[in-house]
Amino acid sequence: MLRSHTCGELRMEHVNQPVSLCGWVQTKRDKGGMVWIDLRDRYGVTQLIFEEGKTDPQLLEKIRSLGREFVVKAEGKVVERVAKNDKIPTGNIEVRVENLDILNPAKLPPFLIEDETDGGDDLRMKYRYLDLRRNAVRKNLELRHQMMRQTRTYMDSKNFIEVETPVLIKSTPEGARDFVVPSRMNPGEFYALPQSPQTFKQLLMVSGFDRYYQIVKCFRDEDLRADRQPEFTQIDCEMSFITQEDILNTFEGLVKHLFKQVKGIELTNLARMSYADAMKYYGNDKPDTRFEMRFTELNEVAKGKDFSVFNDAELIVGICAKGCAEYTRKQLDELTEFVKRPQIGAKGLVYVRYNADGSIKSSIDKFYSEADLKVWAEKMQAAPGDLLLIISGEATKARKALSELRLEMGERLSLRDKSTYSCLWVLDFPLLEWGEEEQRWFAMHHPFTSPKPEDIHLLESDPGKVRANAYDMVINGVEVGGGSIRIHNRELQAKMFSHLGFTDEEARRQFGFLMEAFEYGAPPHGGIAFGFDRLCSLFGGADSIRDFIAFPKNNSGRDVMIDTPSTISNAQLEELSIRVSMSGKK
Amino acid sequence: MLRSHTCGELRMEHVNQPVSLCGWVQTKRDKGGMVWIDLRDRYGVTQLIFEEGKTDPQLLEKIRSLGREFVVKAEGKVVERVAKNDKIPTGNIEVRVENLDILNPAKLPPFLIEDETDGGDDLRMKYRYLDLRRNAVRKNLELRHQMMRQTRTYMDSKNFIEVETPVLIKSTPEGARDFVVPSRMNPGEFYALPQSPQTFKQLLMVSGFDRYYQIVKCFRDEDLRADRQPEFTQIDCEMSFITQEDILNTFEGLVKHLFKQVKGIELTNLARMSYADAMKYYGNDKPDTRFEMRFTELNEVAKGKDFSVFNDAELIVGICAKGCAEYTRKQLDELTEFVKRPQIGAKGLVYVRYNADGSIKSSIDKFYSEADLKVWAEKMQAAPGDLLLIISGEATKARKALSELRLEMGERLSLRDKSTYSCLWVLDFPLLEWGEEEQRWFAMHHPFTSPKPEDIHLLESDPGKVRANAYDMVINGVEVGGGSIRIHNRELQAKMFSHLGFTDEEARRQFGFLMEAFEYGAPPHGGIAFGFDRLCSLFGGADSIRDFIAFPKNNSGRDVMIDTPSTISNAQLEELSIRVSMSGKK
Repeated sequence: MLRSHTCGELRMEHVNQPVSLCGWVQTKRDKGGMVWIDLRDRYGVTQLIFEEGKTDPQLLEKIRSLGREFVVKAEGKVVERVAKNDKIPTGNIEVRVENLDILNPAKLPPFLIEDETDGGDDLRMKYRYLDLRRNAVRKNLELRHQMMRQTRTYMDSKNFIEVETPVLIKSTPEGARDFVVPSRMNPGEFYALPQSPQTFKQLLMVSGFDRYYQIVKCFRDEDLRADRQPEFTQIDCEMSFITQEDILNTFEGLVKHLFKQVKGIELTNLARMSYADAMKYYGNDKPDTRFEMRFTELNEVAKGKDFSVFNDAELIVGICAKGCAEYTRKQLDELTEFVKRPQIGAKGLVYVRYNADGSIKSSIDKFYSEADLKVWAEKMQAAPGDLLLIISGEATKARKALSELRLEMGERLSLRDKSTYSCLWVLDFPLLEWGEEEQRWFAMHHPFTSPKPEDIHLLESDPGKVRANAYDMVINGVEVGGGSIRIHNRELQAKMFSHLGFTDEEARRQFGFLMEAFEYGAPPHGGIAFGFDRLCSLFGGADSIRDFIAFPKNNSGRDVMIDTPSTISNAQLEELSIRVSMSGKK
Repeated sequence: MLRSHTCGELRMEHVNQPVSLCGWVQTKRDKGGMVWIDLRDRYGVTQLIFEEGKTDPQLLEKIRSLGREFVVKAEGKVVERVAKNDKIPTGNIEVRVENLDILNPAKLPPFLIEDETDGGDDLRMKYRYLDLRRNAVRKNLELRHQMMRQTRTYMDSKNFIEVETPVLIKSTPEGARDFVVPSRMNPGEFYALPQSPQTFKQLLMVSGFDRYYQIVKCFRDEDLRADRQPEFTQIDCEMSFITQEDILNTFEGLVKHLFKQVKGIELTNLARMSYADAMKYYGNDKPDTRFEMRFTELNEVAKGKDFSVFNDAELIVGICAKGCAEYTRKQLDELTEFVKRPQIGAKGLVYVRYNADGSIKSSIDKFYSEADLKVWAEKMQAAPGDLLLIISGEATKARKALSELRLEMGERLSLRDKSTYSCLWVLDFPLLEWGEEEQRWFAMHHPFTSPKPEDIHLLESDPGKVRANAYDMVINGVEVGGGSIRIHNRELQAKMFSHLGFTDEEARRQFGFLMEAFEYGAPPHGGIAFGFDRLCSLFGGADSIRDFIAFPKNNSGRDVMIDTPSTISNAQLEELSIRVSMSGKK
């Protein structure tokens, strides 16, 4: 090793020892007679000291030439600091340097390598390798490593086997967002990159592997929203001979283990909520349960007056914002603007101020007496000082808009603290959802999800009513994982495909191998997959997943550092038997 | 859980307990009055017993309908066996079944699900999920999991951070065997799948990650020999502020840890050999050192007689096969045929029998006296009873042929036992090798490998003589890992690219980001990568890597189970702005 110690490990007990350290010049302070350098590596920062009269003049000259981010090797003796720094673990000592080698000089970085940097997003993406030097970013990746380790520790302790499934798989028409890979050896044919290892993990269950997991890259070529990546990582799991309850317990265990080991937080048992209740009380299948503010439906008490907006509405639904009765007109206008934004789409917002003095004042006093409004307030468990916010209209839309408003109010009332965690199982999802545009049913989870046995009789008569043995894990309003009990019976699987509009021939061509596998002794099985990037960002208390990925792509799917995607040569295209065809593009 | 225990865990202490087991019907023996079923799961086999008079007649009827590989749940009581089976851990007990549910029936499998199966390769690949049910195959994947765990345990204990590098990267002309991925969002542009995370791990060193590892999928679109796969797994590692010696020690530690933890074998310190010595003494840069049989060069003692074959040869080189003096004429002819095979390419084979009685007899007695041959025998440290085998010709070809013969003799003499392990570091590889066809130098390892400082002055004058700080780990004649100290200086890297025939513009376009990174403070660094599939097969005592991969591809790069690669729809091609162009193909 070029060093005897790292920059994070020297303490008082090392005083008088000769040491050698390697690292980057973080800062240099030159006070004439004395020069200090903070030397940084992954493990910490150690102060180097040089003193005129004590330090060799040539060495002093050399260190005065050092710039930020130079890579050096320093040899010297550990001494006790006069002015101790209790903010860093090495703050009691410094190294009086006798010899220093410049291992590599450095140009001035395009932005500050510090916790608070002056670099914009684009610049930091282009020089990602410099951004990764910043403590904040490196700590995110250390957290990620810790999450991986602890995930594996837990899964191994529960007898799960990690099995690598293939990356070069088969494209399916369902997977319109597959990335494909032309095969040179099989001209005109393509592999696809997996959106998930779903069918393979089910086959492993058919093989008797009993308990499988994998921390695995998956791929989806979709238009990237702010926080999606074309390649992402999942904790992918499957178990045999289990009921839904076993899966919930096993993976509740995983999440508890991670919180305990990585964050030092002891979670109590996770709350559970049906999809129906989540929609009814939060207007959302991934409610943020760090705060209550549940929906109250007001149809019974708000209809039948002269207010046609409510009378014509399918649903009148409200939330009670504790202690907000004194919101100003301006604040209320802001909230109204907020719900009327196109992406939220409410027509308007009704408010009822339940003043601290017990009086009640609303935006629709013309139609409702104080007594009427008191009834609402009571139904909504409001107390004097609270503000009621009410939206009406078509039920689905009203719930969606109120859900957004609820989250906004949670934000305004500081109820969404990133260091507080509220975990929830959402259960009993519908099996199917209707595609208005395509005029057919789609699998809400995926086509391999099992309907609840007691609902199977509804498959023909009322498909939308059929509930699935499907579950999501939601933390702080973010869906971090989801899964289901699978179909393990060929007939039922074939029936599902047919409900989803597959012809027998299509089902056979795409999933014949799986349906055939079900005929050779498939055990009852089910599983779950967690979005690992998202889980890491939640544990890191961050909004974006990007800073928990070493080399992320930007919103156009580009890595601007290595400049990819990029064109390839005609010779390479020819080898692969493909041509670029830009008709109607760009 | 549908079961109270697995099929591997019941013992005498469970006798009289009520239990429920789930699994596959391995065998059924029906002796009229008694029926036994061996029920199998991942954890073992448990015998179920049914007895006329004691078992409910309807249940007896049901179990008589069971076929092989039916999936069942059996409930009953553990009883002590009359005839114990000490070959299996559950052999002292059996379960007297009171209730049995058929969870899924099974068609008759196309081959026997047993250690010795009757299924051919093609059939087993098509029904890979059934092949994976066989103990032998499942144990391979359990070994692989164990290898992964122990690798991570070791690397974590040494402060390495596992960092995931991207799968969608940039194609480089050097990488003519890149798999590419068209980008839908960037029409006409392509990602490439990594042949290794080389540049990313070097960037992580520039970022100060200090110690990186990853167990990672890599991809190479090359014509597949019997034992290559288009996607394969590496243990990829990199360290900063180290010398070559540190890397050798660290990864010698990894290999020792794996042998100890996975195989229970304590390795002594690994032997080391220079590339030059490996070529000189074994004719091979990955010598199988389970046995000696080193080469002896005979130019000095064999030239100058009337034997023109030797007189004209650049090299005369032989091995001594202990105790083989009595090989028959037929055996010797076989060896001659062996070395004359086109893929080995020797013109002939000279043998010298050093008989047990001290006499000497050779195939070239016409030219050499017994005294001459005694000199050879002495030089080759032969004893009476040994056989000398000698090849001559152009030096490189003679060594290659003799290396093959040496391995063949090792095989014939049973010196290559798969349960014996001999590990070796091969050091000091040449930096460059001459491409005869392309008439230019190629990097023997890769363009990022550092020349030995003391050899840099030869780069211009005698490039072939420059040695690299590169090393391979060889186990039993198989290269399982290789790496190098990297260049961390922009000028030297640019010089290397120019030696490899890159124009400045090409170097900049392809690796500009890396060369630029070297200007912002790159630490000295180096690393290694192990072929994980190969390492697993070695530990498993097998020749082929295929049985250590859950879902391998065949020699045409096909997964015949899911039938990929396959065609994709025109709509999908259009979305991706590509067209299939079969000109001159197929």
